[in-house]
Amino acid sequence: MFLCFMPDQFFTYKQLIEFTETVFKRIGCSSEDATTAAHALISADLRGIDSHGVARLSGYVRLWEAKRVNATPQIKVIHESASTAVVDGDGGLGLVVAPHAMHIAIEKAKQAGTGWVSVQNSNHFGIAGYHAMIALQYEMIGMAMTNASPLVAPTFSLDRMLGTNPICVAVPAGEEPPFVADLATTTAANGKLEILQRKKQKAPIGWIQDKNGEPSTDPHELKNGGALLPLGSDKEHGSHKGYALGAVVDIFSALLSGANYAPWVPPFPAYVPMPSEQPGKGVGHFLGAMRIDAFRSANDFKKHIDHWIRGFRNAKPVVSENRVLIPGDIEREMQVQRLKDGIPVIEPVVNDLEQLAKKLKVVFP
Amino acid sequence: MFLCFMPDQFFTYKQLIEFTETVFKRIGCSSEDATTAAHALISADLRGIDSHGVARLSGYVRLWEAKRVNATPQIKVIHESASTAVVDGDGGLGLVVAPHAMHIAIEKAKQAGTGWVSVQNSNHFGIAGYHAMIALQYEMIGMAMTNASPLVAPTFSLDRMLGTNPICVAVPAGEEPPFVADLATTTAANGKLEILQRKKQKAPIGWIQDKNGEPSTDPHELKNGGALLPLGSDKEHGSHKGYALGAVVDIFSALLSGANYAPWVPPFPAYVPMPSEQPGKGVGHFLGAMRIDAFRSANDFKKHIDHWIRGFRNAKPVVSENRVLIPGDIEREMQVQRLKDGIPVIEPVVNDLEQLAKKLKVVFP
Repeated sequence: MFLCFMPDQFFTYKQLIEFTETVFKRIGCSSEDATTAAHALISADLRGIDSHGVARLSGYVRLWEAKRVNATPQIKVIHESASTAVVDGDGGLGLVVAPHAMHIAIEKAKQAGTGWVSVQNSNHFGIAGYHAMIALQYEMIGMAMTNASPLVAPTFSLDRMLGTNPICVAVPAGEEPPFVADLATTTAANGKLEILQRKKQKAPIGWIQDKNGEPSTDPHELKNGGALLPLGSDKEHGSHKGYALGAVVDIFSALLSGANYAPWVPPFPAYVPMPSEQPGKGVGHFLGAMRIDAFRSANDFKKHIDHWIRGFRNAKPVVSENRVLIPGDIEREMQVQRLKDGIPVIEPVVNDLEQLAKKLKVVFP
Repeated sequence: MFLCFMPDQFFTYKQLIEFTETVFKRIGCSSEDATTAAHALISADLRGIDSHGVARLSGYVRLWEAKRVNATPQIKVIHESASTAVVDGDGGLGLVVAPHAMHIAIEKAKQAGTGWVSVQNSNHFGIAGYHAMIALQYEMIGMAMTNASPLVAPTFSLDRMLGTNPICVAVPAGEEPPFVADLATTTAANGKLEILQRKKQKAPIGWIQDKNGEPSTDPHELKNGGALLPLGSDKEHGSHKGYALGAVVDIFSALLSGANYAPWVPPFPAYVPMPSEQPGKGVGHFLGAMRIDAFRSANDFKKHIDHWIRGFRNAKPVVSENRVLIPGDIEREMQVQRLKDGIPVIEPVVNDLEQLAKKLKVVFP
């Protein structure tokens, strides 16, 4: 590689989408599913959440190789009411199952005002934001949550009992861009530890505990029996609230659907053995859609949400360089920039993707 | 008073309920509304959230005196779909309007699987937990949120833009007691500052900022232009997540209903002037109910939520004295104890209630 002295190599959005589609088709996905999965996965790179994008592509392939992902799932509704459904993802990619479930939620919301879909027997779904934001084009509020393999110790716990269990709420606006809050229910997402590992930097106190439950600054701590901490960091700063929010995500995603939960959620890395106990099926998600005009006229709503957003933008900042942001601002600005300038991919990921291309006999851009 | 040297005076639950009913009837509430309001208010004392219970009774009366509360509201549904409704609280007590709205959500959920009610033109509703827990007796998950007058500075903001905007999620269980997560979206609720003020103690760093946006340990800081901090405390520890959650509560409670929002929510203390701008009507709430068997059989759900709860209870604690708790444990244990031993009320509150009784010419227990 000529550019091995450069920290990052740049790819266009189209290049990454096409490569990802090709890879997913190569493992047996239908053309339609490969397109859906590629858009869900690469939306993370586009929005600047590099840990959840193309960097994980070979991880999904390894799950398929380990027969933990079904490339040709028959996704089915197994229970429903006017505003709810439970979806069996048939072991498919979460990147395919979750958008499918979100569209069911949207159809329910068209009829009943809101739609709520809990999903069992799925896999990791990329970023919650992608799925929640599907609702925006229908003048609906979108919500997406997922559980994940256990990395988080609840308040007072030595054991890891929850995943980073993200919540996304996407709210349409009028003239202003949408409000998109997409957050792991931990103080810091695991992706932030990966960045520190690469930069050989320490983590702030409050992100992780070591295997004895003591505060730690070592970003490698999770490999040594440590754990991520719930949003709030410690009891005095409200970690019981972050723990409760992560627990709610687990309950909505898995207890309502019949997926695995708590420490028994299947791991993303295919080399990690499956948990000894499996109280449900696969990974669980929860998707929701609320039609704005099931509450009030969409025009009235848009007028007021624009006023709300401008009120926050105009709040007086503590330091003038750091203006008050609306949730979703940073990711949206990143998307504009990366569509224009390309998406930087770090060298280890480029190498990994080249190996993947070689293994699957596909062309790497 | 003979017991003025004692820190607390004890009352039975029944005494506080009856006194509160009498007070609400005295200001013109119907007998039924007074009973509803008393149970909602005193549930806070019973569950150990003393800041939100009988201590606020004279505050509600002062709102009525200032004509900011309507004691005889005509609560109306002004917009609805199969699974949603918007309720106009007609300026009534939130303690009456919110249970009314919750029952509408429950009726919707009986028919459509879920019910979601956004409320405008209401007032402060006590603890979110009381309203969410109404759903438990119907084998439903209950949710309750409310916005509140601005005490919280978003990440990077000097201005207070949000209330402590609590979220409660109540989940029924089988043999285990229910899971009840009831949390302000701030690092610490305002009631915790009141406790420190009384004890003349300092607050931990991370709870409040001063009028310049600097960290402060002075629990009186809010009177001097300071602000509470969102859950997460600072950017490095995820305060943008607490800010986003508080914002979601505001959007669901007020932007969907047509209530006031952001810094324009009416204040609880009647002596604080109304905000200069009123983009909506009154305080906003959001109530939700999800019927368990709209997702899966209630028996299956109960079996697994019991297993989930026991899994967390049996997680290895960091220190053996602090076992891992399930959200709602502390409040439930407090309720058992206070029903048995009585509810302690601190002297300033007893004095305040005696004055109130005198003013309204009712008997204080």
